[in-house]
Amino acid sequence: MAKVAFVGLGNMGGPMAANLVKAGHDVAVFDLSPAAVEHAVEDGAHSASSAIEVVEGAEVLITMLPAGMHVKSVLVTGDALMDKVSKDCLLIDSSTIDSATAKEMGQEAADRGIRFIDAPVSGGVGGAVAGTLAFMVGGSDEAFTAAKPFLECMGKNIFHAGDSGAGQVAKACNNMLLSVLMAGTAEALNMGVNNGLDPKVLSEIMSKSSGNNWSLQVYNPVPGVMEGVPASNDYQGGFMVDLMCKDLGLAMENSQQTRSPIPMGSAARSLFNLHQSKGNGGLDFSSIYRLFNKKE
Amino acid sequence: MAKVAFVGLGNMGGPMAANLVKAGHDVAVFDLSPAAVEHAVEDGAHSASSAIEVVEGAEVLITMLPAGMHVKSVLVTGDALMDKVSKDCLLIDSSTIDSATAKEMGQEAADRGIRFIDAPVSGGVGGAVAGTLAFMVGGSDEAFTAAKPFLECMGKNIFHAGDSGAGQVAKACNNMLLSVLMAGTAEALNMGVNNGLDPKVLSEIMSKSSGNNWSLQVYNPVPGVMEGVPASNDYQGGFMVDLMCKDLGLAMENSQQTRSPIPMGSAARSLFNLHQSKGNGGLDFSSIYRLFNKKE
Amino acid sequence: MAKVAFVGLGNMGGPMAANLVKAGHDVAVFDLSPAAVEHAVEDGAHSASSAIEVVEGAEVLITMLPAGMHVKSVLVTGDALMDKVSKDCLLIDSSTIDSATAKEMGQEAADRGIRFIDAPVSGGVGGAVAGTLAFMVGGSDEAFTAAKPFLECMGKNIFHAGDSGAGQVAKACNNMLLSVLMAGTAEALNMGVNNGLDPKVLSEIMSKSSGNNWSLQVYNPVPGVMEGVPASNDYQGGFMVDLMCKDLGLAMENSQQTRSPIPMGSAARSLFNLHQSKGNGGLDFSSIYRLFNKKE
Amino acid sequence: MAKVAFVGLGNMGGPMAANLVKAGHDVAVFDLSPAAVEHAVEDGAHSASSAIEVVEGAEVLITMLPAGMHVKSVLVTGDALMDKVSKDCLLIDSSTIDSATAKEMGQEAADRGIRFIDAPVSGGVGGAVAGTLAFMVGGSDEAFTAAKPFLECMGKNIFHAGDSGAGQVAKACNNMLLSVLMAGTAEALNMGVNNGLDPKVLSEIMSKSSGNNWSLQVYNPVPGVMEGVPASNDYQGGFMVDLMCKDLGLAMENSQQTRSPIPMGSAARSLFNLHQSKGNGGLDFSSIYRLFNKKE
Repeated sequence: MAKVAFVGLGNMGGPMAANLVKAGHDVAVFDLSPAAVEHAVEDGAHSASSAIEVVEGAEVLITMLPAGMHVKSVLVTGDALMDKVSKDCLLIDSSTIDSATAKEMGQEAADRGIRFIDAPVSGGVGGAVAGTLAFMVGGSDEAFTAAKPFLECMGKNIFHAGDSGAGQVAKACNNMLLSVLMAGTAEALNMGVNNGLDPKVLSEIMSKSSGNNWSLQVYNPVPGVMEGVPASNDYQGGFMVDLMCKDLGLAMENSQQTRSPIPMGSAARSLFNLHQSKGNGGLDFSSIYRLFNKKE
Repeated sequence: MAKVAFVGLGNMGGPMAANLVKAGHDVAVFDLSPAAVEHAVEDGAHSASSAIEVVEGAEVLITMLPAGMHVKSVLVTGDALMDKVSKDCLLIDSSTIDSATAKEMGQEAADRGIRFIDAPVSGGVGGAVAGTLAFMVGGSDEAFTAAKPFLECMGKNIFHAGDSGAGQVAKACNNMLLSVLMAGTAEALNMGVNNGLDPKVLSEIMSKSSGNNWSLQVYNPVPGVMEGVPASNDYQGGFMVDLMCKDLGLAMENSQQTRSPIPMGSAARSLFNLHQSKGNGGLDFSSIYRLFNKKE
Repeated sequence: MAKVAFVGLGNMGGPMAANLVKAGHDVAVFDLSPAAVEHAVEDGAHSASSAIEVVEGAEVLITMLPAGMHVKSVLVTGDALMDKVSKDCLLIDSSTIDSATAKEMGQEAADRGIRFIDAPVSGGVGGAVAGTLAFMVGGSDEAFTAAKPFLECMGKNIFHAGDSGAGQVAKACNNMLLSVLMAGTAEALNMGVNNGLDPKVLSEIMSKSSGNNWSLQVYNPVPGVMEGVPASNDYQGGFMVDLMCKDLGLAMENSQQTRSPIPMGSAARSLFNLHQSKGNGGLDFSSIYRLFNKKE
Repeated sequence: MAKVAFVGLGNMGGPMAANLVKAGHDVAVFDLSPAAVEHAVEDGAHSASSAIEVVEGAEVLITMLPAGMHVKSVLVTGDALMDKVSKDCLLIDSSTIDSATAKEMGQEAADRGIRFIDAPVSGGVGGAVAGTLAFMVGGSDEAFTAAKPFLECMGKNIFHAGDSGAGQVAKACNNMLLSVLMAGTAEALNMGVNNGLDPKVLSEIMSKSSGNNWSLQVYNPVPGVMEGVPASNDYQGGFMVDLMCKDLGLAMENSQQTRSPIPMGSAARSLFNLHQSKGNGGLDFSSIYRLFNKKE
């Protein structure tokens, strides 16, 4: 069993750290919120008084932070944990951040002879608690292989997307595509409903035809079509519009840097932004269906 | 075995009629093209000298025509086959046309006490030849039940979408969604490639994540990722850009009539129109990937 | 002074007919609504008991109807006024209809040796009453020259756009562009406001810069920036969202027929459709500003 | 006459500095490119050996740099000129950068008791040479008043957009709107041409109607319609697609930060990105017309 340092105990990081404890690892944690640390200690982790203390003796350091600037600060410019960890320590950043910062972190680590992977997750809070997250990993084969056993304590599907930054790129591409699928499915179902079709029947037909996609399979946006999804629970829970807007912002940045045309992602982003600006940021993103609905 | 009249022997209608012959039906055919008729006769059909002659004694009439105006002309205003067939004859229109005309035809048939279904297909020429088409049917339960055995001679998945016109609506919704999936998948893969990712790896990751959709499963738009798809054959064969533009035009009409907002379908239509206007109308629709690619 | 027949006395047709009377012409009118006819008679027109009677002895026939099917019915397939008027009668269709039907009407007239122009208007009810409409005319030079004196009784700017149908094309292009200007201006002003800028100041700056356009000049969409515009009157009056959606539908049809990519018009149409579907069809189209606004 | 320090002598900065010299100011310049400095010296400026030396004794410091990170480095984190200038020195940043950095610079200056304005320009190289630029200024009334005489040496229209950052916001809004106008005008004219209309006639009609906008007035995108514009010079000169894409990237960032929905700007950005990705980044932005054109 390994000594694991975990920085960032939010809605995702908390249960991820807990799953590492369950798997038998010796987990030291740090977060700016004392309550979050306390909760992790109840789950069996050790608390550290600072980000610097938490990495003492660590064989693995996992960060789970809100944005690129936080990751950069913790690893390089602020706490500068890259200069505090031992050379053998494996760095895993599971934050969802811009790929440019992820590549920069990879380079900073390489400059110091340290292994680093970017490993953003998908699967939401539910997946974090259940230990069924998907990890999209960027980094060397060696670092990927070394990280895999740890990622498997927290997730189910572990993908090696490519070199440093590729994990963030893969996630940005996937979530951009997801926004397109969801908005496209919602407007198609709405047009069907406006024509008098039963959304269950139309969903069934399209899911067995060339319109088939993830949202029709497991995450139908029309209330009442599918059980156990946010749409059937007043769009509570799930993946918030605010988070989708954040991810689409990352995709926009990437498209700007790589001069990649993303007209469909841009159209979807506009719709989620419109929806968000009307006060729906806290609803599940499948609530985009409501944007298309006629006023009752 | 039944006496079936078949009007419209194009790329789709020809093999559909042949499959009815193979199933043992007595099939009389008509088409304005003598060559098409000759070909059907070689397949075992009987030729008729006119659309009116072809329905003599027919128990079932199947039409497979380019657009709503042709269907209306053949059934009501021109040849007026609705006034020539016997009251027991079952009318099946498998043309892909606007739902307004489909509903109108349903009403015209109802006024005459005749059973009518709109039953557009998907699956392309390959599906027509192999007898594996999908049918999306609009009409009464009784008409659907009566038509099913005949549709099963030509297809595999037979869906009852709802009342008269619902088959056309379902197809318009599905194909609009398909255009969105394909364009969205193509731009996401292109952004990944621009970031140095291997499109095979990224496709694999997204197909196992929330970006999963029909095009990642069976119709990848990036050359070389998947065998046996148009993308790996210089975008030859498959479903032409011209036909996708036609279907998106039908979706636009429907959205106009039902006041349904379809921003994603509209964005996809703009892209396919741009692509078409550059001389790519005859390529498979997955060639939209080329629109996003950087100039070599 | 000439004998003028006028068919179609709606919100626009009524005041247009009145202006012809004022100019001294002998105007006979017909409309399916007795109240509309009565109102025109009060304005000094003669009433006719049918569309056929109204054209007896007419030197000019003006039609002002809702859609292409009405124009076609009145002129060719129903009342068939083209077969009732004298060969010397000049036909002016001021309805806003699809250009395909307009061209068809031009051909039908040419086949009969009759002069015909399509002459849709812009300027709204206010312009119709004030006699300051703009006319966009399609037809021969000769027909244009003959029609001009009559159009000048009802309008101020008389444009000869080209051959038969060109008037409708010009109007579709202009109104599509207008929808783009208005939506683009509204979202730019909204982003400025979200950044704390005064919309008056930002409007002033952009109207003197490369963002200058008609809406900044005379039709600002932000309440309170400009006096006497719908935005400062709770979006009452002006040009309704429903009518903009109708015109954008005509532009879509045209783009489909001519395979013209119109991504910006399509994006604008999606926004106006979204806005319409929330119950705002009766508001002035500058109310699209509200779609972008944050929820209060 | 004042002592002016000028940092950043690119295509824009060079002629701007020259105009300050012409107006009689004592101008010290710095740029990383010796050739650029040499050129400015020929125009009558003094050269300095470093950014730090250039501000010695300066009453005004003007910066004209590529992006926010350069401005931040020169003013605060690198050369840190804010700590080198005298408290009375007026800082004018005419770079086009993100408004967040502009606000941050304003705050940094305020913290030091220094006057600062963000004052991005429009008008291009031609305007810089001719001294007819437009300045959009963010900052206090006092700073604006102090800066105005200097700006008037380089430009014609000097707008006070609001507080710190407002200049950058106004420019981002204006240029986003400009991209929308240009793309919308280009596609409308192209649809007209596809219908057989003369683009000159259609431009004339729309410029006198509600479609009127800056591009129809002075910058028509169709070759041959207007003399002296890039469209009539094979899209050489003018405002490059690459620069429009940069400005649209700034607008996207702003929209992300302020949660402002910008569907039209997003659609325009997608089109300019598509156009850029095909190797057209160096053409004038009105070349977007070519994207819509049918393949010859």
